[in-house]
Order: sequence, then structure tokens, then C-alpha cells
Amino acid sequence: MEHFGDRLAAAVAAKGPICVGLDPRLERIPPAVRAEAERETTPEARARVAIARFHRVVIDAVADRVPVVKLQLAFYEQYGIPGLLAYQDTVAAAREAGMLVIADAKRNDVPSTAEAYARAFLQPGSERPDGLPPAFEADALTVNPYLGRDSLMPFVDRAATAGKGLFVLVKTSNPGSGDLQDLGLADGRPLHLAVAELVTDLGRPLVGASGYSPIAAVVGCTHPEPAAEIRSRLPHAFVLAVGYGAQAGNALGAAHCFQPGGRGAIVNASRSLTYELPAAGTIGELGHAVRANVDRMAADLEAGTTVPG
Amino acid sequence: MEHFGDRLAAAVAAKGPICVGLDPRLERIPPAVRAEAERETTPEARARVAIARFHRVVIDAVADRVPVVKLQLAFYEQYGIPGLLAYQDTVAAAREAGMLVIADAKRNDVPSTAEAYARAFLQPGSERPDGLPPAFEADALTVNPYLGRDSLMPFVDRAATAGKGLFVLVKTSNPGSGDLQDLGLADGRPLHLAVAELVTDLGRPLVGASGYSPIAAVVGCTHPEPAAEIRSRLPHAFVLAVGYGAQAGNALGAAHCFQPGGRGAIVNASRSLTYELPAAGTIGELGHAVRANVDRMAADLEAGTTVPG
Repeated sequence: MEHFGDRLAAAVAAKGPICVGLDPRLERIPPAVRAEAERETTPEARARVAIARFHRVVIDAVADRVPVVKLQLAFYEQYGIPGLLAYQDTVAAAREAGMLVIADAKRNDVPSTAEAYARAFLQPGSERPDGLPPAFEADALTVNPYLGRDSLMPFVDRAATAGKGLFVLVKTSNPGSGDLQDLGLADGRPLHLAVAELVTDLGRPLVGASGYSPIAAVVGCTHPEPAAEIRSRLPHAFVLAVGYGAQAGNALGAAHCFQPGGRGAIVNASRSLTYELPAAGTIGELGHAVRANVDRMAADLEAGTTVPG
Repeated sequence: MEHFGDRLAAAVAAKGPICVGLDPRLERIPPAVRAEAERETTPEARARVAIARFHRVVIDAVADRVPVVKLQLAFYEQYGIPGLLAYQDTVAAAREAGMLVIADAKRNDVPSTAEAYARAFLQPGSERPDGLPPAFEADALTVNPYLGRDSLMPFVDRAATAGKGLFVLVKTSNPGSGDLQDLGLADGRPLHLAVAELVTDLGRPLVGASGYSPIAAVVGCTHPEPAAEIRSRLPHAFVLAVGYGAQAGNALGAAHCFQPGGRGAIVNASRSLTYELPAAGTIGELGHAVRANVDRMAADLEAGTTVPG
């Protein structure tokens, strides 16, 4: 399977750096979609259909200029089995539309258990030994580094052998991210820079023809100064810039996540793209409204990233 | 709903400090259980029934002397939807048998997303506004602290209002846990002690009649020295001691996770209790073999914990 860093670099070169985040919240799904789902006979089926249908509308509206979707597992899991069925429906729709899929699940555990998470999210269905359908396979997974290098290796191995990608949390977008991530170490570095260096270290043997490794970093564009410092420590890693839009990150913050020339980053927005839909009465208008949000973000990022590049 | 710290303290006082970890691995489920599951007509149903049936045998064999089961989500998720249906079956069986259930999912994210995980794992089914069945509700959830205090608050709020518990990763059992967790901070503390102090801080306003808060800590008994130091910083927290058995933690390491008098800890073992079953031909023998493993562990812990207490 093709190298994830190369796939991502090619997709971003073709379509630009926006990542659309899908966070299902039933109460915010527009009435036109919910009306379609009301034809189903159980609450479970109505929930699954509403989420999957809504996300298919979003995907179809943006697939030609958005290379990546990020599915936030927490929002699917809150709806139980119907939510996870909608997750699977949405992954299939995104792949059909030619998009890369990040499972934003922020998983990790001790190595033997991390291996089970790697099977759940990064094992191709065709490689299953047990005759079961694929579990929750995506192209890439977000992971939490707190358990250390050996806990990351089962995911790194899938990146090396199955063309999958990893996004390691380095500096998150929330106000409290500094509580641990900014703690000063005895050697003077903040903790998040030790994690950035681990990301570089894990990715070094896996750099592809594009110059990027499949081991990427999650960085909040809500914290521009650490973002710039982290960016400088990641010569071969993509950065997934998070927190743009609803979390108050902006284009200037996002700009610090790019390398010169506007390379090496994708910028995620979720709620601001998919739920700010003022004039969306019909399904068609809904698609247009999402697309207009994406176009506006693209213009905003372009204006922002020309400054420091 | 009753306070989780009080419920846990009462259950441990009644039954002892063992937590049985359930990590479904289809290939290790004994033939007698798999033979029953073979009657099902699809691979999905066979997987679900094999896991759920196996865990029910384990639960029924130990429920009178084991207060808590810990379900490792990674091993359920690797089987996709059938795995998660088996998770729900197993939670129901454990509660029916009067046991407390820890969902070992090591979740966390930024606050608005953490809130969705809290709904998925800690929201009582009766409180759902959407008519859906409960998602993955358990009595307590393991969480990762890397995102900081605000990311933990949605879970803490469920502990305060819904009688739920939290187990925060402080020092994990894997060999690489020190890569980040043992990093020395500028103030001289290792990072894991800063996390231990955060656990104490979050739990302080929530201490129950038992003297314990519902905010507990996960500590590897594979690292006895840090375990003892961590234990001393957690006056009101239970410790979930992990890594006993297959990960080479032993009773002496576990002993460091207890307070004087053998209080304040539960010790988890997974594979060594449920998959080391030499003479288990029938379902009945399987139950006896699991029970014998638990009895042996109880004796081992009792011998170990009398030393430092």
C-alpha cells in the first residue's frame, strides 16, 4: 500500500490544506436531513441514517477541494452501536469520494493492548484472520503519547507495513493543554517539545519520496508561539492544526503550523464548517452552505499563510 | 446514585482487592465455549457469542470474591461492532452479578469532546435525551491526563453528579512508561508525581464517607519505587494496580500500591487469570480453573501485602 506521507502530500498539493472534521451531534443536524431519517422505524436506525446521510451531504459538497476528513470517535461513540455504524458508513462514503480518513480517536495503551487498537483502526479488512468484516479501519489514527515510545510502536509498525498514518498529540488546542504539555523539564524544554522530538525520531526511518514521514503531529493553532517552535522541530512531519474556528484558532495561528511555502500542514475545522449553515432549507442548500464555509476558510487560510511563508 | 469511592470501598471490604481484566482474544477462548458459539450462523454472531459467553463463565465463577471487572475496550474494538455488542453483553452480565465495571478505554480529548466520551461511558441510560439505548455505560472509566485539567472535568462532573468513577493514568505498567511519565520537571518532580497531585486535587472536593474520592489512579505494579511514592501522594484515592501476572508485576510490587492495612487499592490481572487454564475441557471445568487462578492470586496478594502494611 502506498506510503501515507506521500499520499497526504499529494492530496494536499492537489486540493489544498483543509481537513473537515465530522463531529455528529444529532440535535444540530439540519431538519432536511432529519426529515429523511424520520422514515426509519427505530430510534437506532433514525440516528444512524441521520448522521450518515448528513456526513454524505458534507462529503459530496467538498470532496473536490478537501483532501482529508477527520471523524471524531467520541461523538460517534456517544450514540452507541448506531453511532459506530454511522461511522463505518461515513468512512465508506469518504473513501468512495477519494478522500483520506483520519480516525480521531486519541487511542493508546500498553504495547500488547495498543496492538489491538492498531488492529481496530489500521488493519486492512483483507488482512483479518478471523473472517470478520473490517472493524473501524481508517487511513490514519490520532494517538496519545503519554504511555511512551513502546506504546506507539504497534501503530508505527502499521504505518511502515500497511501504508497507514499516525497523528501524535503534541500540543492540543484546549486552554488547559499547558497543565502537562507545557511543564518545563529539567533540561529546559517544555514537555511538548520532548514529544515533538519523539515524533521526529519515530518518523525518521519512514520518510517517503515526498519528504514526509507517515508519523504526523497534532498541534493547536490556538497557541501560535509553541506551534512555531514545534513546527521547527518536525522537519519531516505533517502537522494537523486543530482548534481553528469554533475553538477560536485563526489563520495566523494556523500559519505557524506550516513550513515555508505553505507546505506540511492540514488545518482542521469542524463545527464552523458543518453546523454554521444559516440558509440551508433543502439538502441541496445544505451542501452549498457547507461548501461556502469551506471556500471562505480556504480564502482565509490563504491570506494568513502568505504572511510567514 | 451512590458515591463511587464509597461503593468501591464497600465492595473491596466485602470481597477483597482483585480486579479481573477481560481482554477478549478469540483465538484464546477455550474450545468448549467456541463450540457453543459455532451454532451461530454468521462470523459476527459467532464472535459476539463466543466473547460474551466466555466472559459470563468468568463472571459467574468469581463474582462472590471479585468486586470489580475491567473491560479492555481495545480488545473489543478490534472485533468491530460484534466486539462492542459483546462488551455490552458483558457489562450487563457483570452488573447482574453485582460487580462494578471499569471501562478501560483510556479516553480523553479537548473538553467539548471529552464531554461526548463522558456521555458514551458514564451517562446513565435513563438520562439520555434522544430515546437511544445506553451507549457503553460503565461504573467507571480510565482516562489519559495528557490534555490537562479542563479535559478531565467532564468526567469529574459525572463522578460528582452520577455516582461514577474515574481512573486517571499516572504511571503505566509498560517498560516504556518512563519515556514521558518519568521525565524530571524543572521543580525536581518526575511528571507522574505532577499527575498524582492533579488526581488528589480533583478528588479533594469529592471525598465520600469511606474516605475515598471517586477519582482514582492507575499505577503499574511493575515499578515498585515510583508506585510507593505515588501512593504516598494520594491520601484519598484508590489505586488500580496494573501489570500483575502476564506483565510480570508481582505481589511485592502490588503491595506498594496499598495504604497501610491493605486498603486503598485494587489489583488487576487479565491474561494470567482468564487464559491460563490448563485442565479446562468443559464449561464447568473452565469456571473452576478461572476460580482457582483467582484464589491463587488472592493468596499471593495476601502474603505480599502483609509485609509493608
